[in-house]
Amino acid sequence: MEQENSHIAARLFVSAPLAANAVVPLDSDQVHYLRSVLRLEPGDQLALFNGFDGEWLATIETLGKRAGAARAVRQSRPQPVERDLWLLFAPIKRARIDLIAEKATELGVTRLVPVMTERTNVARVSTDRLRATAREAAEQTERVSVPVVDEPQRLGQALAAFPADRRLLLCDESGTAPPIASALGQTPSVLAVLIGPEGGFAPGELDGLRKLPFVTPVGLGPRILRADTAAFSALAVLQALVGDWDGDRPR
Amino acid sequence: MEQENSHIAARLFVSAPLAANAVVPLDSDQVHYLRSVLRLEPGDQLALFNGFDGEWLATIETLGKRAGAARAVRQSRPQPVERDLWLLFAPIKRARIDLIAEKATELGVTRLVPVMTERTNVARVSTDRLRATAREAAEQTERVSVPVVDEPQRLGQALAAFPADRRLLLCDESGTAPPIASALGQTPSVLAVLIGPEGGFAPGELDGLRKLPFVTPVGLGPRILRADTAAFSALAVLQALVGDWDGDRPR
Repeated sequence: MEQENSHIAARLFVSAPLAANAVVPLDSDQVHYLRSVLRLEPGDQLALFNGFDGEWLATIETLGKRAGAARAVRQSRPQPVERDLWLLFAPIKRARIDLIAEKATELGVTRLVPVMTERTNVARVSTDRLRATAREAAEQTERVSVPVVDEPQRLGQALAAFPADRRLLLCDESGTAPPIASALGQTPSVLAVLIGPEGGFAPGELDGLRKLPFVTPVGLGPRILRADTAAFSALAVLQALVGDWDGDRPR
Repeated sequence: MEQENSHIAARLFVSAPLAANAVVPLDSDQVHYLRSVLRLEPGDQLALFNGFDGEWLATIETLGKRAGAARAVRQSRPQPVERDLWLLFAPIKRARIDLIAEKATELGVTRLVPVMTERTNVARVSTDRLRATAREAAEQTERVSVPVVDEPQRLGQALAAFPADRRLLLCDESGTAPPIASALGQTPSVLAVLIGPEGGFAPGELDGLRKLPFVTPVGLGPRILRADTAAFSALAVLQALVGDWDGDRPR
């Protein structure tokens, strides 16, 4: 918590370009948050990022009822180069799917792909809600980008379109997969993680997955993990061993 | 999901000894759960564990309004030898502290120690609630034991009483600590993890912690993690690298 802008009360994701003196529109949710939650006023400072231009120190220009604007002053952090990391996950119950989006964002996932498996018993996925959760997690945890959230697709579809040069780590709870730490030693650095639904993959799905040349089954220890725990755990181990946890925080 | 007793609807933690033909009392919450939630009846099967005698297949004997009983039939899994792993954590908001207890249980923590730090702004911790959350997580994720939950204590107190032969991994977000994967290479196997509150440790606390001979500061990557995410992540990496994820599931 020793970052330069720790006195900045608000940190917002915007879609406008950021450059010195650029005036950036704020939407009604952002205006409400700045004015009614944080009690900020025109002239107060905030931080802005859009996923491309780094993080910018900015000043609130106007705060209307429905809209407002801020003016970018100077870049406080450059845009970091992020390693591309996908999470494919079977949708689960509402609170836990939100948690997956939140924690995956904190753990550096760049693309979230909801995949419908045989035993997925969640009929509808609100990708808007997942996007809002991911954006909020990025805003609150100093990330300078927000992961992309795909529309849900069938697992078979996602696998058919899967790039051959990306390694897909299949979190396999059958107890037969090699431990994740040893499996990761042999993988290239372009990665994706696949997590099944609460009831696990169907046996046919699991057989099919294991036969795909880009799939590496990995084990996550002797206890059964909930789907959300399996997702965070695999991502944390991956970042610690072959991801971007190998150096100091780039500031 | 291929375990022997996957057709067993209920898995309960009990405090009575388990042995062939032992009659085990069920409390009012358990009776309510079996009867009203799962719609089970006397004669139906369930699994029981107490943290000492392994997991037992049992049959419901009686289901009254306030109490009931089950009879242990045969041991379905021996009691595994667990590695002792502590989590010291500063209490945080209610939903997130529950999440810490739940995920720590899934990730094999054997003792949960709430510690009050300078910037901890949660006045009261319901250890009963943490215990219930941990018990439920163990019941639902096939663990055969439940972590101990200590009463809250001041951080200074916990450190003064800390055993000299246990290594305490301090999750240090200052960006200066070595990455957790490299730090773990040099630690003994008796471990504890320490997570600060949402606002981080106070500078004086951090200085004091770094001077203790049993403390190893570890870094968790370039992004700021929420306290709960830091806890899960450190525990997952620890289990994957030096913990019990190195082998197949013992069944």
